[in-house]
Amino acid sequence: MSQQPFQTVAVVGAGLVGLGWAIVFARAGLEVRIFDSQLDTRRDALQRIRNSLTDMKHHGLVDDVEVITNRIRISGSLDDAVGAADYIQESVLERTDVKTTVCEQISKAMRSDAICGSSTSGIPASQFTADLSKRDRFLVVHPVNPPHLIPLVELVAAPWTDQAIIPVVREEMKRIGQSPIVINAEVDGFVLNRLQGALLNEAWALFEDGVASLADIDAAVSHGLGRRWSFMGPFETIDLNAPGGIADYARRLAPLYHSIAASRVAKPWPNDVISRAEGERREVLSRENLVDRSAWRDQRLMALTAALSEIDHGSPSDRDNP
Amino acid sequence: MSQQPFQTVAVVGAGLVGLGWAIVFARAGLEVRIFDSQLDTRRDALQRIRNSLTDMKHHGLVDDVEVITNRIRISGSLDDAVGAADYIQESVLERTDVKTTVCEQISKAMRSDAICGSSTSGIPASQFTADLSKRDRFLVVHPVNPPHLIPLVELVAAPWTDQAIIPVVREEMKRIGQSPIVINAEVDGFVLNRLQGALLNEAWALFEDGVASLADIDAAVSHGLGRRWSFMGPFETIDLNAPGGIADYARRLAPLYHSIAASRVAKPWPNDVISRAEGERREVLSRENLVDRSAWRDQRLMALTAALSEIDHGSPSDRDNP
Repeated sequence: MSQQPFQTVAVVGAGLVGLGWAIVFARAGLEVRIFDSQLDTRRDALQRIRNSLTDMKHHGLVDDVEVITNRIRISGSLDDAVGAADYIQESVLERTDVKTTVCEQISKAMRSDAICGSSTSGIPASQFTADLSKRDRFLVVHPVNPPHLIPLVELVAAPWTDQAIIPVVREEMKRIGQSPIVINAEVDGFVLNRLQGALLNEAWALFEDGVASLADIDAAVSHGLGRRWSFMGPFETIDLNAPGGIADYARRLAPLYHSIAASRVAKPWPNDVISRAEGERREVLSRENLVDRSAWRDQRLMALTAALSEIDHGSPSDRDNP
Repeated sequence: MSQQPFQTVAVVGAGLVGLGWAIVFARAGLEVRIFDSQLDTRRDALQRIRNSLTDMKHHGLVDDVEVITNRIRISGSLDDAVGAADYIQESVLERTDVKTTVCEQISKAMRSDAICGSSTSGIPASQFTADLSKRDRFLVVHPVNPPHLIPLVELVAAPWTDQAIIPVVREEMKRIGQSPIVINAEVDGFVLNRLQGALLNEAWALFEDGVASLADIDAAVSHGLGRRWSFMGPFETIDLNAPGGIADYARRLAPLYHSIAASRVAKPWPNDVISRAEGERREVLSRENLVDRSAWRDQRLMALTAALSEIDHGSPSDRDNP
């Protein structure tokens, strides 16, 4: 019954995103079944989850690694994983043909009252669910990577998605500790990547024009804008940045921002500029160290999550006691 | 001697920005003189600084409120504040005519080897320093509000600024705990507000088109993008978001971001959309509560600063022991 709280969920695809989802669900007390078509990916999944949970415990984000891991089972077939699930999170390769094939299998195996969310970051559900017999039960439920450390999820319906399931998924995502937002149209990049893209396009153009170095543009965000944006969105930020609130701010500054935007012509990121950017990045971080630095990023996100949670709620580990 | 570390600094203009600067300087151990042309603003300045420092002490960001406050003196005249200073931070009203008049007075009163930085967020130094006798000693040193809680500062020279003072100011800003970046051209909005503007323009357009609610667009940043951007810039973020680093990411995703940008026509923020946005904001935060919420923002920034500092360095209160 999809109007009941989700109790049993399936994760199809056990890459980074799928395993992050498994942690999100199990941390919230749900029973999780994971399927991946690759045998070695399936075999390693539980150990990789245990490693992530151990890191999280170190930051006070979960209490008991084994209790949470014990809620997760690896299934030997897609049918076994999906058959009993109230909710299915599809997290396979980001290719329309692959999503189409896997969602066909999910549609056949799932209960008629179950819901399937796709983790796709950029392919609208209408491009791979049109021919499914249960297509009204499918939508995009796009997380930010890694889902167990960044709570935002974007909900995007296809034209044929049953509108009644949107509020259900929204409530359930909230209940399990995520921050769902509803996107009302299948626009390219949804909302999160459109916002990221707008900032990235300006950042690339400033770098191309030599206005500042790559490292200094990065610092403008990490030591400036990002400090506010880690707990307030752009609208709340400007609402608090003028004595009379957002309309007052807009009256004062819209002309400046419009002239900035009007003077910037959208253009592809040129190859020579990409090469120059890569050169600057590889000077501060060698290619071999990318993996270590990604681990550092996740440690930093865990510490930040713990800190933000403590600011808001007192103890950061409340979350795994739903 | 400007090549020596700054020891005595002047702050001209004792509004929010000026007082924030006074805290930054005094926290780092410098002697600070403040001048403001308004008598009651001068009179209240020390108490307002003491209040901010007391908040900061509560978050473990400073050790001793009185030791820091005792480094700050209120001057009865601009000449008295500026005359002995190694460095002057101009923080008066954001109007070209006001900046021109005040900088003329500063230029006359300052030592010939002193440096004057302007806090302007949007007026290039060339628009108000052209006729000063010491114009080669002036540049923009733009902080983010409030400067004692957000470390970024943008350094922007006028065409006639002595290039030798840029590295001096950069080093001194670092030494006192700020994060300086160098902007190589007097572009509208410098770097920080161009990046903010790019994201804001997209956010307004998404809201205008009904793609998502104001609150959901805010959440996409505060519960998504901003979590990473509070400690990594946009380039480092994408460098870690593809197996082969930034060039790999650019090859995969530049076409998507370019098509997003190309489909977005720059346009002014329409008045009816601003009114609608104000309506949504005033529903969640009444006009009377704007001031309280701004205080909440500053508390949150203090807690975040303490947390980030602890993650990086151990104790957050090391900073006031330079």
